[in-house]
Amino acid sequence: MKITLRELAELIDGELVGDGDIEITGVAGIKEARKGDLTFLANPKYEAWLETTKASAVIMDKTNGSVDRPVIVNSNPYYAFLKAVKMFHGSRLDTEEGIHPTCLIAEGAELGEGVSFGPNVVVGKNVSIGSGCVVMAGAYIGPGVKIGADALIYPNVTIRENNVLGDRVIVHSGTVIGSDGFGYAKDGDEYHKIPHVGNVVIEEDVEIGSNVAIDRATTGTTLIKRGVKIDNLVHIAHNVVIDTNSIVLAQVGIAGSTEIGKNVILAGQAGLVAHIKIGDNARVGSQAGVTKSVPADTAVSGYPAAEHSGAKRLHASLQRLPDLLKRVKELEKRIDEFEKEKGK
Amino acid sequence: MKITLRELAELIDGELVGDGDIEITGVAGIKEARKGDLTFLANPKYEAWLETTKASAVIMDKTNGSVDRPVIVNSNPYYAFLKAVKMFHGSRLDTEEGIHPTCLIAEGAELGEGVSFGPNVVVGKNVSIGSGCVVMAGAYIGPGVKIGADALIYPNVTIRENNVLGDRVIVHSGTVIGSDGFGYAKDGDEYHKIPHVGNVVIEEDVEIGSNVAIDRATTGTTLIKRGVKIDNLVHIAHNVVIDTNSIVLAQVGIAGSTEIGKNVILAGQAGLVAHIKIGDNARVGSQAGVTKSVPADTAVSGYPAAEHSGAKRLHASLQRLPDLLKRVKELEKRIDEFEKEKGK
Amino acid sequence: MKITLRELAELIDGELVGDGDIEITGVAGIKEARKGDLTFLANPKYEAWLETTKASAVIMDKTNGSVDRPVIVNSNPYYAFLKAVKMFHGSRLDTEEGIHPTCLIAEGAELGEGVSFGPNVVVGKNVSIGSGCVVMAGAYIGPGVKIGADALIYPNVTIRENNVLGDRVIVHSGTVIGSDGFGYAKDGDEYHKIPHVGNVVIEEDVEIGSNVAIDRATTGTTLIKRGVKIDNLVHIAHNVVIDTNSIVLAQVGIAGSTEIGKNVILAGQAGLVAHIKIGDNARVGSQAGVTKSVPADTAVSGYPAAEHSGAKRLHASLQRLPDLLKRVKELEKRIDEFEKEKGK
Repeated sequence: MKITLRELAELIDGELVGDGDIEITGVAGIKEARKGDLTFLANPKYEAWLETTKASAVIMDKTNGSVDRPVIVNSNPYYAFLKAVKMFHGSRLDTEEGIHPTCLIAEGAELGEGVSFGPNVVVGKNVSIGSGCVVMAGAYIGPGVKIGADALIYPNVTIRENNVLGDRVIVHSGTVIGSDGFGYAKDGDEYHKIPHVGNVVIEEDVEIGSNVAIDRATTGTTLIKRGVKIDNLVHIAHNVVIDTNSIVLAQVGIAGSTEIGKNVILAGQAGLVAHIKIGDNARVGSQAGVTKSVPADTAVSGYPAAEHSGAKRLHASLQRLPDLLKRVKELEKRIDEFEKEKGK
Repeated sequence: MKITLRELAELIDGELVGDGDIEITGVAGIKEARKGDLTFLANPKYEAWLETTKASAVIMDKTNGSVDRPVIVNSNPYYAFLKAVKMFHGSRLDTEEGIHPTCLIAEGAELGEGVSFGPNVVVGKNVSIGSGCVVMAGAYIGPGVKIGADALIYPNVTIRENNVLGDRVIVHSGTVIGSDGFGYAKDGDEYHKIPHVGNVVIEEDVEIGSNVAIDRATTGTTLIKRGVKIDNLVHIAHNVVIDTNSIVLAQVGIAGSTEIGKNVILAGQAGLVAHIKIGDNARVGSQAGVTKSVPADTAVSGYPAAEHSGAKRLHASLQRLPDLLKRVKELEKRIDEFEKEKGK
Repeated sequence: MKITLRELAELIDGELVGDGDIEITGVAGIKEARKGDLTFLANPKYEAWLETTKASAVIMDKTNGSVDRPVIVNSNPYYAFLKAVKMFHGSRLDTEEGIHPTCLIAEGAELGEGVSFGPNVVVGKNVSIGSGCVVMAGAYIGPGVKIGADALIYPNVTIRENNVLGDRVIVHSGTVIGSDGFGYAKDGDEYHKIPHVGNVVIEEDVEIGSNVAIDRATTGTTLIKRGVKIDNLVHIAHNVVIDTNSIVLAQVGIAGSTEIGKNVILAGQAGLVAHIKIGDNARVGSQAGVTKSVPADTAVSGYPAAEHSGAKRLHASLQRLPDLLKRVKELEKRIDEFEKEKGK
């Protein structure tokens, strides 16, 4: 594909600054771009790369007199770049429509139009799959599962019985949806397993990374609402609720019945104890250990997690501690001196 | 299913307080319960829900004058609730007895009575599977594996060669048992892989969550003893031993050759270095980084993990540090003042 | 297999001290060794076991007058032991050459000589697999994937489209290579998925543990260079680069575009933020939270990660904090006393 920079600028809603006649033949990040590529600058950390990148043009949020090549100006360069990527690459997936003959589909299945089932997919009884869904090799869809339209289930995913996935949900490989929650009643030294008779509901436009584990509810529903994005290797326990458009980064763990508000960001490796609430728009720092509820619009970090600016102040004080020890020792000497003199 | 509260109280060993003639039609958690449901109260955090729950009756460990609906009193409400759940739901799994025709079972297999093998199960040579076992779709059972009676292996589990699982073991989807331990001998800059010729033994009544990784021993056995419960995404390295009835919560990592005692609790995201011992009944806090052995009956937390009450005291002191810095500065001023006067 | 200790000492390049005529029938760790076994001592923690081990001979890096059994002296006992293990056990894998009839191999595949494909392996279009490769049951190899010679892919691995694996790469079960990176452009409250059109390249002699997730690049390549060893449950985000012979321990998370140098060690559960560089030979402590670049040859630990000796000094000061609080209180009293007297 070849397109002039002028045409491209129009298609991605940007303002052209510089030579619009050059031809763009690809898209790439600023480090790996070659001649002919369009790249973008969104993170100031990468500004130094502007001088050395081989890209023929750059999307930026403002022109910068010193940039020695054509620029497309757009207030959201990453989103504009996304549009350019889609233009050049379209959908990456090259799947064939239809049901592969090795699929095993139990009775009662309702399959929408244009579904694509790869080899060795196993589908339990009374499953409903929306039109345009793609289910790839080796995925297991348990009895009673309902999946909306245009969902995409990658190879070797396991979706246990009676769970519900909305339209356009994406589930990456190795992920398990609806395993039993971790619940035992103790009687003496023995733990007795509590049956988990609830399910998991994943609303539309949710994406779930690789090797994630989302447990079904004890009773009721583990609920992931519309637009939530979940990274790799995340643990979501039974009866957790995550509200719309929240972001859960890699290796986060959320214990049972905890509720996450809207537009929350849980950074990588954060851990949340059971039975707490994280308010809307809250931000939990990476590796934070959250042991109690967090109000809306608050940033917390550290273990146990505390309001972020306080945690930073504390951390700064901490750096002065070895010096403080010396100063106190000095003070003690000086006051000893006084007392000695006074005693004279 | 319908049953009067009076009959139910008898069946779950509780004392009825209030109207025993009402009909119970289901079981549910206190938040999601509807009219007709029996619920329970075990965690005081949920006491406030007693006023608003729609449940028709509650299991509690004591009557509470102010509860406006019938109560079943039992000293262990969660365990009593578990019995009620089982009564209403029985076993969740609706698997068919028999070997699905797509299973591939190598020579030398000994299969007990009444086993259920789902589609595409692959079984290596000389495997022995106890009566009543359920092995679900896409699971891989390597050569020489032995599994006891009534075990339950969920879809897409991998059990490598020569491992042993006891009666009633449950393994959730995506879990890998018996991968090679992480062991390399360094020679110059190069790492040489040490073959892992040991195995994994999982004793009876162990349950293992989703996407767990348990490595085989270098030589000898990685051993998970009777009654241990392991949550999702846990890492257990080669030659680890976990003694009876211990609890390993989600995303815990246990490095090579470390030994965990009986009735230990390792809370979520805790990490344990190699070659240490955790004594019986010890408790390791969430996200704790355990760098040395922990005596029996001890609670530790923090990084590096220290006795919990000391860690809490330290944490409390820490909050006073910014104030302390000010106080020391003030002291220095005052003593400067003295010295100035004295010099006069 | 039986061999005299004298012959064994020669084969593993060690110096025999003691009776070389005894027969060695196996190899084992020092704890689990029995009569007839050769064991080794590399970690001083295990020195006490020298007295009680049942092993008939020990590999050590020096003779020790007090050892009451024959010794093979070698400066690298673990590596010498590795050679002995290989002699007794050979390769653990007992796989049959050939393509199992249940494999599904799409058009355009180039398969080297002597490959072994287990049951239900699914191979996409235009795949190239080197000679001697073993791909085990249920693995998925996406379209356009290239794998070098003698690689070993364990059951239920997922390798997505267009990724490249070098010679002798080992990938353990449940691992996912090439899932989409976690990248969204925000527009208002909505996150828009950025297509990930790059790939993953894994160079020769890399080993990857169980249930690992390695994301493909947004554009360009996520690159794991020669000789890198990755433990279980590790998360490697899009566009990460790990240079030769680095070690990544279990449950480590590396965020997008971060670059790891040569011979680096990332200890268990460490987390690294995006867009930083870890210099050659650096060591990141277990559970460290690395928030900025780390120079070469540096050891860091803690959260936020700081130079290790400083972090240890800080930690030591911290233990004195409760005492410091008391001392400052005492100083305040004494100086109050002075001022009172002065006022008289």
